[in-house]
Amino acid sequence: MKLKIKTEKRIELIDITDEVREEVRKRGIEQGVCILSTRHTTAGIIINENESGLREDILDLLNRLVPAGVGYRHDRIDNNADAHLKALLLGASEALPITDGNLELGTWQSIFFAEMDGPRNRTVNVTLLKGE
Amino acid sequence: MKLKIKTEKRIELIDITDEVREEVRKRGIEQGVCILSTRHTTAGIIINENESGLREDILDLLNRLVPAGVGYRHDRIDNNADAHLKALLLGASEALPITDGNLELGTWQSIFFAEMDGPRNRTVNVTLLKGE
Amino acid sequence: MKLKIKTEKRIELIDITDEVREEVRKRGIEQGVCILSTRHTTAGIIINENESGLREDILDLLNRLVPAGVGYRHDRIDNNADAHLKALLLGASEALPITDGNLELGTWQSIFFAEMDGPRNRTVNVTLLKGE
Repeated sequence: MKLKIKTEKRIELIDITDEVREEVRKRGIEQGVCILSTRHTTAGIIINENESGLREDILDLLNRLVPAGVGYRHDRIDNNADAHLKALLLGASEALPITDGNLELGTWQSIFFAEMDGPRNRTVNVTLLKGE
Repeated sequence: MKLKIKTEKRIELIDITDEVREEVRKRGIEQGVCILSTRHTTAGIIINENESGLREDILDLLNRLVPAGVGYRHDRIDNNADAHLKALLLGASEALPITDGNLELGTWQSIFFAEMDGPRNRTVNVTLLKGE
Repeated sequence: MKLKIKTEKRIELIDITDEVREEVRKRGIEQGVCILSTRHTTAGIIINENESGLREDILDLLNRLVPAGVGYRHDRIDNNADAHLKALLLGASEALPITDGNLELGTWQSIFFAEMDGPRNRTVNVTLLKGE
């Protein structure tokens, strides 16, 4: 299944927890794994707490570790090297358990699509696997 | 299956390799994948070498890249923004192959639960999938 | 299935997309997931764009965030602490969907083995799982 996302800023976190949870419920897998992966090289998948201050702290950290436009080679080709490098630190996939037919998340866990080079139309792959 | 862990310091690495290996052996899956995921937003899963100096180097690196208490917004809500940000860099899940009924690890690979905001009682999800 | 790789530099990115794609095609799984994992503690798996400038930007970023030989404890045991720490930031595994019998990658996505302590002979685990 593919989740379509429309991002609105250059760099932002979009909470996709409800959409993923609903997809797992619909598919009726009792035990297994839900794998989330991005099809993009300037975006990542994050699992963390959805608190507005923390969301900004996350973006600040990424901008501090990987500032935009500081002489990257890739900026001569396409002016978004920092977005690729931020995505690298986040990773392209995450896996979550499915238990008793539901996506299993800890109390504070939310799933985010992390846009590093928006605004764009984006796609997240949601792949379900039956476990033992 | 859930692995229960009791951490003792604010930030530490707990080697869970033996527990995960034993769980794989017990379950009798010949070929497949073992997925490890954390239920927490201030902890991560790491696969690296278990050497005491390196374990400290890892914690030092995380403290250097994400120092505690330097004006994060989330610290006004809950004084642990650095722990969330460190967990972000580590990632919430890892996957390892199961081959001939055993968890397959390289010579130097150990699995760690990475506590970033202890001491706490923690849970690691260990989910097994049968492969082709 | 195991992919054998011979790296030639201390730190480099090796594009393994074609080998992984071919393995998926050969195995005839229609829907599922392909999991890539490293057996090494000084190497990682990356999914990003294969553009020569960006490949160098990635290595520069890793060298900037984790410079070699700056007093790490592990360097007294084995002079490669920076390689372990770089691998930690990259992560040891990634997962990609298999759709209609093919590895599903976005337009700009390539899969890299990220060598952080070469030159060495390396192994990547490619594990396929049937989905629902």
